[in-house]
Amino acid sequence: MTSQTDNPGRTRKRPATIVDVAQVAGVAIGTVSRHLNGQPVRAANRDQIERAITALGYRRNSTAVAMKTDTTHIVGFFVPSLGEFHAAMLEQLSRKMRLSGRAVLSFCHDLQPSSIREGLEFFASHRVDALVLDGEEAIRNDLMPYIDEGLTVVLYDNDIPGLPVDRVFADNRKASARIVSHLLDLGHTRVATLHGNPRDSAGRERLAGYHDAFAAHSLTPDPSLIVDCQWREIRGYEAMRELLAMPTPPTAVFSANYNMTLGLLTYLREVGVQIPRDLSVVGFDDVPALRLHNPAVTAVGQPISEMAEAIASIIDTRLANPAAMGRHDVRIDCSIILRDSARRIR
Amino acid sequence: MTSQTDNPGRTRKRPATIVDVAQVAGVAIGTVSRHLNGQPVRAANRDQIERAITALGYRRNSTAVAMKTDTTHIVGFFVPSLGEFHAAMLEQLSRKMRLSGRAVLSFCHDLQPSSIREGLEFFASHRVDALVLDGEEAIRNDLMPYIDEGLTVVLYDNDIPGLPVDRVFADNRKASARIVSHLLDLGHTRVATLHGNPRDSAGRERLAGYHDAFAAHSLTPDPSLIVDCQWREIRGYEAMRELLAMPTPPTAVFSANYNMTLGLLTYLREVGVQIPRDLSVVGFDDVPALRLHNPAVTAVGQPISEMAEAIASIIDTRLANPAAMGRHDVRIDCSIILRDSARRIR
Repeated sequence: MTSQTDNPGRTRKRPATIVDVAQVAGVAIGTVSRHLNGQPVRAANRDQIERAITALGYRRNSTAVAMKTDTTHIVGFFVPSLGEFHAAMLEQLSRKMRLSGRAVLSFCHDLQPSSIREGLEFFASHRVDALVLDGEEAIRNDLMPYIDEGLTVVLYDNDIPGLPVDRVFADNRKASARIVSHLLDLGHTRVATLHGNPRDSAGRERLAGYHDAFAAHSLTPDPSLIVDCQWREIRGYEAMRELLAMPTPPTAVFSANYNMTLGLLTYLREVGVQIPRDLSVVGFDDVPALRLHNPAVTAVGQPISEMAEAIASIIDTRLANPAAMGRHDVRIDCSIILRDSARRIR
Repeated sequence: MTSQTDNPGRTRKRPATIVDVAQVAGVAIGTVSRHLNGQPVRAANRDQIERAITALGYRRNSTAVAMKTDTTHIVGFFVPSLGEFHAAMLEQLSRKMRLSGRAVLSFCHDLQPSSIREGLEFFASHRVDALVLDGEEAIRNDLMPYIDEGLTVVLYDNDIPGLPVDRVFADNRKASARIVSHLLDLGHTRVATLHGNPRDSAGRERLAGYHDAFAAHSLTPDPSLIVDCQWREIRGYEAMRELLAMPTPPTAVFSANYNMTLGLLTYLREVGVQIPRDLSVVGFDDVPALRLHNPAVTAVGQPISEMAEAIASIIDTRLANPAAMGRHDVRIDCSIILRDSARRIR
């Protein structure tokens, strides 16, 4: 029962909805929706609906108005999985998209080739207005034909170089250089990095930032301190064990994502290594766990809200003017949140 | 370019997709999709598509087969926001739904009345197969008409009592009783609780569990130790400050969700209260931050994967047999993960 039914006599306090229109017209909600979307309904129903709209003073909300056009107002979100970072992006993206009457359809492909193909077919069949995706190289070949046919695609997080699409990324390289420079400024020279999969652009860029910092300080890193941990928590754990077993272990470490940071902190805790006395620790990705950690961990905060804003704005622009030329290639600065996990040495 | 284009002469290693069918038939992917979905396409195109399907030995994947029916294969996910818990549920739900060829369309309503109405209209207009939602009381009146019209709805996390829909919940009350009993078993009698909004069923149930534990131990809690923190981090922070300023402060505290736990831990850390020496701490919701915390925090782990499994299974069953009578009311046990944040007293 609606509030009207509860209190038939009271003054209506909220604007009429399509539910009210359906009730007054005596038709199904879906019928009202079809009529408002310009799809055919029986003439008798159409007249009833129009009379109800007039009687109720119904005004279409932004979603309904948006739906008048021939787009679906669904934006696809295509990621390997919904961990901490992608979930936060989805949340922000949903909020921004809502302002233009769009909702976000998410699909996790787990990097499985069959899931990737299925997901893309699913989005195509549902004629999403646009597709926002983490640019995994594994998607390239399957994605190309959809781009050729004019699907609006925005890459974020990782790039697929060469694709004629729009891009919104955090400035991974600059932020990594800055946080590693912070360690070098504190006098560390044996700075290790647990880096992500070099197949991914974010993995390559964060590692490049590490090298940039060394170059800017006229230093050369010890190659044995550079460990490929594939973005994975367990590899972060194992890498830390191996690094600390070296004859000359590192005095500081930069972990290139939250999962690996989680692994390394878990190991340090198990063996009683004290941060920052025994080892300085900084990481990419800021989550509540890091400020709650004892000591709180210095981290790179990704500009998720700004990235979502940029993505939504690009999609609005593209859909408003599909023939527009040129590509957006947005890089957004990250913040470095200094806490208590790095100390000056010597 | 597809891999075929790259290597026209090589043996095809993967099954043909609708993209291949479109290329061979010389039509748009969307045209193939429409034809496969039983929608009308021009006769010439139809013949081209059928010939391409035969030539390529194209077999429709599970998504495509599922789409043959007249459902949309989209499931709506309607929550106030995508925090830690709802994001994890969305991830699990997306995985389980994929198995039956469905994807999940998410919409955050922020508990705003206008957003709630807009979201429901959006889902209705897109004719979602089913709607999974956090049962906020604020949704009741707007949701009712859709249920009356036969929309498949599954409530999770919070209940809206009386609605004729299916339900999947964690057994909040039992888990809360168990973790509070753990504190009472350790000899604590001044056990505080930071509880959630009593407007929400999860808030009421977790508080009821707290009282159950006291009753089972033939004890009565001090009412001044029971603080409504509205699920919010800042209230958890403030409540902890007020509780510790009491003439006889609590010796243990049970926080009913992760946000409030975050607030209380932040306060304890700021003022240097040692856990569990000065105060034993346990909480509802288990996240990596709690096992990484020093000391690691004893917590209730929600059965998110099992809940998603149950929701997916209910939706499959309902859609296979829409006329089925009876309601599912599933309660799933939580696990209590014992760590180092509670100690025996006296």
